[in-house]
Amino acid sequence: MSAESYLSRGVSPTKDEVKKAVAGQSAGEFPGSFCKLNVDIARDPDYVCSIHADGAGTKSSAAYLQYMETGDPRSFFSLAQDSLVMNIDDLACIGATDGFILSNTIGRNAHRVNGSCIAEIIKGYDHIIELLNEYGIRITMAGGETADVGDLVRTVIIDSTVVVRLRKEHVINASNIRPGNLIVGLSSTGKSVYEEKENSGISSNGLTAARHMILSKYYYERYHESLSETIPAEKAYCGKYKLSDQLPNTCMTVGEAILSPTRTYLPILGKILPKISESVTGIIHCTGGGLAKCKDFGRNVRYVKDNLFELPPVFREIFASGEISEKELYQVFNCGHRLEIYCEKEAVGEIISASESMGVEAKVIGHVESATRPDGNEVVIRGANGEFLY
Amino acid sequence: MSAESYLSRGVSPTKDEVKKAVAGQSAGEFPGSFCKLNVDIARDPDYVCSIHADGAGTKSSAAYLQYMETGDPRSFFSLAQDSLVMNIDDLACIGATDGFILSNTIGRNAHRVNGSCIAEIIKGYDHIIELLNEYGIRITMAGGETADVGDLVRTVIIDSTVVVRLRKEHVINASNIRPGNLIVGLSSTGKSVYEEKENSGISSNGLTAARHMILSKYYYERYHESLSETIPAEKAYCGKYKLSDQLPNTCMTVGEAILSPTRTYLPILGKILPKISESVTGIIHCTGGGLAKCKDFGRNVRYVKDNLFELPPVFREIFASGEISEKELYQVFNCGHRLEIYCEKEAVGEIISASESMGVEAKVIGHVESATRPDGNEVVIRGANGEFLY
Repeated sequence: MSAESYLSRGVSPTKDEVKKAVAGQSAGEFPGSFCKLNVDIARDPDYVCSIHADGAGTKSSAAYLQYMETGDPRSFFSLAQDSLVMNIDDLACIGATDGFILSNTIGRNAHRVNGSCIAEIIKGYDHIIELLNEYGIRITMAGGETADVGDLVRTVIIDSTVVVRLRKEHVINASNIRPGNLIVGLSSTGKSVYEEKENSGISSNGLTAARHMILSKYYYERYHESLSETIPAEKAYCGKYKLSDQLPNTCMTVGEAILSPTRTYLPILGKILPKISESVTGIIHCTGGGLAKCKDFGRNVRYVKDNLFELPPVFREIFASGEISEKELYQVFNCGHRLEIYCEKEAVGEIISASESMGVEAKVIGHVESATRPDGNEVVIRGANGEFLY
Repeated sequence: MSAESYLSRGVSPTKDEVKKAVAGQSAGEFPGSFCKLNVDIARDPDYVCSIHADGAGTKSSAAYLQYMETGDPRSFFSLAQDSLVMNIDDLACIGATDGFILSNTIGRNAHRVNGSCIAEIIKGYDHIIELLNEYGIRITMAGGETADVGDLVRTVIIDSTVVVRLRKEHVINASNIRPGNLIVGLSSTGKSVYEEKENSGISSNGLTAARHMILSKYYYERYHESLSETIPAEKAYCGKYKLSDQLPNTCMTVGEAILSPTRTYLPILGKILPKISESVTGIIHCTGGGLAKCKDFGRNVRYVKDNLFELPPVFREIFASGEISEKELYQVFNCGHRLEIYCEKEAVGEIISASESMGVEAKVIGHVESATRPDGNEVVIRGANGEFLY
């Protein structure tokens, strides 16, 4: 998949032009940290504050297809978790694991997405907030906005914004990642103790690519509103599956796999960070940029990832579509682990046992070296069929 | 325009089903206030905190048309002000006039809205933040997210979320509005000292209706991507104007009138609220719901608005389209004043002179009485051609 063919689906392959547009903005109180940290809103010199925005992205288009096929508004329920976790797991990477304040923005076409669908999304927020509260992760729903913007939004878009304050001494700053660190990867698949079902690992990144590579022309013919008309017909829903088909090598349907709610790692991080923060130099949430996302963090380092998890079935199907190279697969999807903890050797055992006690497989997936070239960071991924350099 | 014909353009006429979906959520620390106030994020018992989400709505579709016709990415510049002011002017209604923290969420179709358009939006945020800073309104840009979601968003959607803390003793709670109060309206048109150009008064509400009632079929034929395909052809761009046409009785084009940036009243409120807060019982930002929005606030009161500003030219053209009744015009658009300050008689003079010293016309547009029926609030609007009850 070249940059051009990725853009053919309306998604820019890198966010270079966006990064350029915001380049003039301040880097915040801890430059190089995973999320921007600002002067505390309460002006306490011991604290910093972060306000973070993200959403479920085009995953809601898959939920819309499921809704249209089944008539069941519950198809939208877990998008709230997707939209929330894309924020709180980013914030966990700077060390924030409690005391979040949440607001959401839902934009919809009222012709297609009715009040019962909106009610399911709101219920989904209540559900995940309540569930995380049982694990000591307190989130306050402070309000939100649901706008009827049918001239802009084809179906529905679900964004969240989360605010958190953090003691400066608890900040994890990824710019501290250094040669010699080990990288512990936390699995994106399986069933954790805090999940109701097996997770496919798909999360909320690369969903435009995933939908078009896995789902069949059946959806193109019936649901033009589920995709941009700027996507050429030959790039639209090129896969072989219907949502109700079984995903090979799993006990879930393709629809369940694509809509599998984004796992949060907060119950694990909330438990271990207070104990091992001295040994942790950085945490990376493998979202846009996938396993190469770390390249934006740390200074003159070479990330070597040579012990990945086996590629989960949902990503195997995406790769099997032939629409994406292995190199790019690692750059778009998490490919088996969505959280990376960079740490000293002595912390590894504690991280792995804490994660596994919560039902999330974990292992050392690589390490950090000094960069071999003077002009920046490198990422080396040893995949199933070769080694790739980013 | 019946409820049904309004929904025919993909916008629900009331937000009843949304209100129902969120009815179970907490009313916050000051039930009945214009925005929800939560327990302080810093847990200071003397403070409350609000996190507020809103955006430029379908105004960005008009900017897209302007961009396509002129090729000028600056067409998107002032949408940042629209998106921001829809938040901060709501927050001003609870008494917050300083110390805002801002995050934005931009969703776009990368095929249609390129990096230079995004750069203009970001510049627009920087510009309005800097301008308001000169008037003592400090806003910190804390970050944001620009997502490529072409399968969801036809062109571009620009939302903002703003967080603010407020001393409890400074909170203005619209539930205190009471019989005997006067209503001072602050004009939405003219040129204030802090604006660069004459303002049409359009703001960011009712833009789906406004675009389709003012703009001509020319845009339907050329820019299908600027509207929902669920809008029937006969409801799409039914007006008689092109963006470059002169708007009658003004010195602006139709494009300038529709894209006129949403005026903020903060420079005025920041100046007077500290002096007169004892005499102010409520402030209403006439957004969705227009001049009838106040009906949701106060208890068993009858709002009588019998001295409105003359209907500004942009709303006169919308009314002249014949697509909307006068009663509904007042319910969708601000119709001349977008801010209402509810107060004791003795504060009126100070409000009007402070507003006019900033170049914003102000006058008593009505008063508050006791409700005549036992089952809730009433709004009476005495318009050009009759009296309307809501």
